[in-house]
Amino acid sequence: MAGNTAGTLFRLTTFGESHGSALGGVIDGCPSGLSVDLEKVQGELDRRRPGQSKLTTQRKEEDKVEFLSGIFEGKTLGSPIGFVIKNKDHKSEDYSHVKDAYRPNHGDYTWEKKFGNRDYRGGGRASARETVCRVVAGAIAKQILDLLGVELYSYVSVVGQIEIPKSVKINPIYIENNVLRCPHEKTANEMIKAIETVQKEGDSLGGIISGVVKNVPVGWGEPVFDKLHANLGKALFSINAVKGVSFGEGFSAAKMKGSEMNDLFVKEGDSISTKSNNSGGIQAGISNGNDILFEVAFKPVASILKNQDTINPKGEKINLVGKGRHDPCVVPRAVPIVDAMVALVLVDAYLLSRTNRI
Amino acid sequence: MAGNTAGTLFRLTTFGESHGSALGGVIDGCPSGLSVDLEKVQGELDRRRPGQSKLTTQRKEEDKVEFLSGIFEGKTLGSPIGFVIKNKDHKSEDYSHVKDAYRPNHGDYTWEKKFGNRDYRGGGRASARETVCRVVAGAIAKQILDLLGVELYSYVSVVGQIEIPKSVKINPIYIENNVLRCPHEKTANEMIKAIETVQKEGDSLGGIISGVVKNVPVGWGEPVFDKLHANLGKALFSINAVKGVSFGEGFSAAKMKGSEMNDLFVKEGDSISTKSNNSGGIQAGISNGNDILFEVAFKPVASILKNQDTINPKGEKINLVGKGRHDPCVVPRAVPIVDAMVALVLVDAYLLSRTNRI
Amino acid sequence: MAGNTAGTLFRLTTFGESHGSALGGVIDGCPSGLSVDLEKVQGELDRRRPGQSKLTTQRKEEDKVEFLSGIFEGKTLGSPIGFVIKNKDHKSEDYSHVKDAYRPNHGDYTWEKKFGNRDYRGGGRASARETVCRVVAGAIAKQILDLLGVELYSYVSVVGQIEIPKSVKINPIYIENNVLRCPHEKTANEMIKAIETVQKEGDSLGGIISGVVKNVPVGWGEPVFDKLHANLGKALFSINAVKGVSFGEGFSAAKMKGSEMNDLFVKEGDSISTKSNNSGGIQAGISNGNDILFEVAFKPVASILKNQDTINPKGEKINLVGKGRHDPCVVPRAVPIVDAMVALVLVDAYLLSRTNRI
Amino acid sequence: MAGNTAGTLFRLTTFGESHGSALGGVIDGCPSGLSVDLEKVQGELDRRRPGQSKLTTQRKEEDKVEFLSGIFEGKTLGSPIGFVIKNKDHKSEDYSHVKDAYRPNHGDYTWEKKFGNRDYRGGGRASARETVCRVVAGAIAKQILDLLGVELYSYVSVVGQIEIPKSVKINPIYIENNVLRCPHEKTANEMIKAIETVQKEGDSLGGIISGVVKNVPVGWGEPVFDKLHANLGKALFSINAVKGVSFGEGFSAAKMKGSEMNDLFVKEGDSISTKSNNSGGIQAGISNGNDILFEVAFKPVASILKNQDTINPKGEKINLVGKGRHDPCVVPRAVPIVDAMVALVLVDAYLLSRTNRI
Repeated sequence: MAGNTAGTLFRLTTFGESHGSALGGVIDGCPSGLSVDLEKVQGELDRRRPGQSKLTTQRKEEDKVEFLSGIFEGKTLGSPIGFVIKNKDHKSEDYSHVKDAYRPNHGDYTWEKKFGNRDYRGGGRASARETVCRVVAGAIAKQILDLLGVELYSYVSVVGQIEIPKSVKINPIYIENNVLRCPHEKTANEMIKAIETVQKEGDSLGGIISGVVKNVPVGWGEPVFDKLHANLGKALFSINAVKGVSFGEGFSAAKMKGSEMNDLFVKEGDSISTKSNNSGGIQAGISNGNDILFEVAFKPVASILKNQDTINPKGEKINLVGKGRHDPCVVPRAVPIVDAMVALVLVDAYLLSRTNRI
Repeated sequence: MAGNTAGTLFRLTTFGESHGSALGGVIDGCPSGLSVDLEKVQGELDRRRPGQSKLTTQRKEEDKVEFLSGIFEGKTLGSPIGFVIKNKDHKSEDYSHVKDAYRPNHGDYTWEKKFGNRDYRGGGRASARETVCRVVAGAIAKQILDLLGVELYSYVSVVGQIEIPKSVKINPIYIENNVLRCPHEKTANEMIKAIETVQKEGDSLGGIISGVVKNVPVGWGEPVFDKLHANLGKALFSINAVKGVSFGEGFSAAKMKGSEMNDLFVKEGDSISTKSNNSGGIQAGISNGNDILFEVAFKPVASILKNQDTINPKGEKINLVGKGRHDPCVVPRAVPIVDAMVALVLVDAYLLSRTNRI
Repeated sequence: MAGNTAGTLFRLTTFGESHGSALGGVIDGCPSGLSVDLEKVQGELDRRRPGQSKLTTQRKEEDKVEFLSGIFEGKTLGSPIGFVIKNKDHKSEDYSHVKDAYRPNHGDYTWEKKFGNRDYRGGGRASARETVCRVVAGAIAKQILDLLGVELYSYVSVVGQIEIPKSVKINPIYIENNVLRCPHEKTANEMIKAIETVQKEGDSLGGIISGVVKNVPVGWGEPVFDKLHANLGKALFSINAVKGVSFGEGFSAAKMKGSEMNDLFVKEGDSISTKSNNSGGIQAGISNGNDILFEVAFKPVASILKNQDTINPKGEKINLVGKGRHDPCVVPRAVPIVDAMVALVLVDAYLLSRTNRI
Repeated sequence: MAGNTAGTLFRLTTFGESHGSALGGVIDGCPSGLSVDLEKVQGELDRRRPGQSKLTTQRKEEDKVEFLSGIFEGKTLGSPIGFVIKNKDHKSEDYSHVKDAYRPNHGDYTWEKKFGNRDYRGGGRASARETVCRVVAGAIAKQILDLLGVELYSYVSVVGQIEIPKSVKINPIYIENNVLRCPHEKTANEMIKAIETVQKEGDSLGGIISGVVKNVPVGWGEPVFDKLHANLGKALFSINAVKGVSFGEGFSAAKMKGSEMNDLFVKEGDSISTKSNNSGGIQAGISNGNDILFEVAFKPVASILKNQDTINPKGEKINLVGKGRHDPCVVPRAVPIVDAMVALVLVDAYLLSRTNRI
């Protein structure tokens, strides 16, 4: 297996299993001279951390990142940034029910068939716990975007059947106002109720995260195969549980006419923009200066407390009894992960764009 | 700009502008000893070729591929396969209206700002004409998949407001029965009418292509960042006009409960499969042996015959008068392109999977 | 086989067999806006072309490069530069003696065992004829270096037992004064005699090419694995027949003391340099502003007219009768190839260096 | 800076500065199911460790590797193998003399100019201390080679003016018999004397490491740019202080005739080999089944105890007073590093070779 590295110039390589001793990674290609705000990095980790509310898994992890290299006297050296996050609460649970079952919609079966063996301790490398490393690297990437004036946020727009009404204008300052990271309080409350209901049933819910990136300069993204949204799409699909990704009007665009879809260019003062933004800020794979808009669909969490019929590695039918600590709805905790992946792709595109012209 | 190469082990690098002298590419990493059926390659190109019906652009291109290397006495040598496709009908049109305008939803503006100059001849490298090279490489990849028993097809499931009813069971042998590549005749006829209507209005329509891959062995796809559907997602988003991609239940999964979404494992005889296939054949980024199911949303063609307000490179307001040869709906011709991109990703995943175990 | 691409940001992918219909390549990542002097490109090809003198192979190839994309109105577009060079004189010879033998020190045996089949037409992809594509790309890279004031040249310093005396100060303007590309006339004449002698014997000679790069700014080369001389070393070893590469004092450095080897820093006016240049312009893998100095050792041409004992693909002993058109000494024609590979690596390093700092 | 990753399928990414808190790395792409002998890994580290004899630096590092992921119940999982080596003895020294000087033949000057800042603590990332991570990964790669029957060793053949006589037949079992890793006792003793002499003078010596790889199957190495010796060459040049690399007859080949150089094929029983091995086991970039033979030239250690004239970052002339803990001759400790880099390249080539044929 190779496949634990993302990016071309700003590269993240990660390692670590859910219940091994530690997770970690290497950020290679971070330009030198960046003042790193370590508290902000930890802040992003805290947004992702389990145990934030009764709606998330009760696994206790302080998710403290320790930087081992690449930062000296507060600034990046240009050398690779190595970091580790120790697993603390990784021995308290009994995973024998996992060892003896192919859990539905988990990686148990596919990993075992692929690699011929399996780390049954809580999903091993297939666990979403690996995303903790993405958040670290993304938090550093975001600090580069900050310097460039690029603003990036995402939020929960749909949980199960509940969604923010289209008419609501999103204000990002409200995202962190509730445990759901839904910037519309009324909708958030309905979502909480919906989650509590399925939680009682021992079930889980899916949802959608919507994202916005403001002030991206014109010209990021490399044609043909490395279009900006192709790289963003890959990065988002690489997050556990993602089943759909779209940009701008997305799947709705399929139902539109060209005259409705086309974003007409206008010039105001010195600045060129488009009247509408159905394209979601990217045209021909290159940022056009407008807001980048995207949506990411997450399936419901596969671990549920309801019993399920499945088979064990011997091929015998078993009834899997649900237990353990799981999020009934993963999307609120996925928000910082989405932010991180988008930031990583954007910084990579930015660095590449420095080489476009002679 | 780097970004004209796709794949890790089975790699396609392409070149060529819409109205340059030729397009072409290099396939590197194709295993030796493959008997290449050149007629099948040309057959795939013919499926993509313009001028197939009155519903597609009338540009005349015979799209004849010429192989320059890598194939000797009917078999691949293991050396890179170079090929070219000459542009024939590339001087007959007047592109001054393009030179003097930023056409809405085209790459005119973003490419010019990125690279500081522009090939205004019909969109240059941003034109979907570049996809001709993907079809060549994909056709060779498909022949490798054939040897492995993997079957791959895609078809038009939605055009504008018209879609194949969910109740219809798709039979791939009907895909080529009509110009729309919609395997349900009744729906196809409605789609044709819808397209003819917008064509008369000088407008265009978007649509959705649905795809199926059968008999993929368990174990293709490399965690973490190179999950099978992440790589497929990137490949599909790299096709011109794609605004959304999903797998299995896709965006609908966001509205489901875990107990509805989970695909329960069952064993019949020696073979393990899942009762439902909401995951779309991929779990934890690795193929699970079930059919891979995906959807790709295309926006309506940006080139329309209706006049549109836009600006020229000087920043002056202009009214762009629509003219030229354009598809009123691109999805039927995009079917072989989707097939090609999926085939390229799958062969790459297959070759990588050969190195998974000691 | 993947392995036909060189470079990270400035990338060359090549294809083509010695006796196929054409060779060619794609240069991806060339910045836009470069005015390309096509005559200079052809000029570099002419330097490499066979048939330049009676000391080189008499194969007749005009080696005319045809650019198919990426250059428009005299400037690079930023899109990939595709090119082909047609083989003209590739059917005139009988290669049955090659088909039925593993020629010593050729790739016949290793390629056949690796790929299970073989292109016996003159060596196929293993032939040094593929280097024609490197020269095209290198010639464009050199034009970027020209803009930066970087000057690059290499020359023949050793042929068999004859070498330029250490005391001779090299002046690059004399390199093209003789067919050997040896800038010291007296030595060149001795080399010519030595080659003529082995040519009469039906034998061949090896040699050494020495190279110099002037005015490279401080800071090119990426630690740790992509040190500037590591990338140069790889590029040079990838040229057919190269058996050794060294930088600065090279193998002699092994015999020196630290106090002799160390290049002491001095400052004159505003400019920092080193008193000596035993390091050859690279320290810790990064250019230090001094001249980059290197040597490349070529083995004698494997194709000789003397008969040799070898085996055929059936494993039977045979006596290979030498015939065909071969260079008795390859180093003079290898000079533009060395130049090309060095230029490719340097431009790649230059583009990467644009992303070193925030 | 990107450049801290080596390999295509078997990939090593490293991080860490000489005097930071830890060094470490990630091995991605190691096939699953490999039983890892951790003692052997530590054994290789011990071979590289400082303080082995009075001829090496007295820095005290136990160089204990801690694996954090990728190995479970003694076997590789297929997931990335993360590891760290903590720096212990990294605060005991005063590096102010380094901070205030550009040390000759060190990376002080080039890194500072490249990155705009510098980790002056003992050379930072430019220090050869980073090679500790290469040894860890190489030790695992060697265990894969062991399974394949490939045997790999290297040894000190030259120190300063002293070299093993050509007539001596090397027996690898003697390599570890002396502190110099020179398998010829008599020569080793002379080398020790030579080193002691320069050590007393406060000076240092260079040397050459020779290497042999036995039982490599025919067919490893990917033409054209990724020839086996090109990748080996790059890997070896990436080791600190290497100034020259050669294969087989190396630079001597330049002085030979084709009829002397050519390795004639012979068949004995079922096995094909060559009479001589002047090519050093690689032909046309692909292993030919014969022993791979190479030489690596190291310059003398730049850190000497003699005072040297240099400049400080302000550009002022200074006299650098030598102090600190340094190896007077680095080649004995470089032997396991050379072994490691060769093993990494070979395993990568092996995995790639699994995809050569359909």
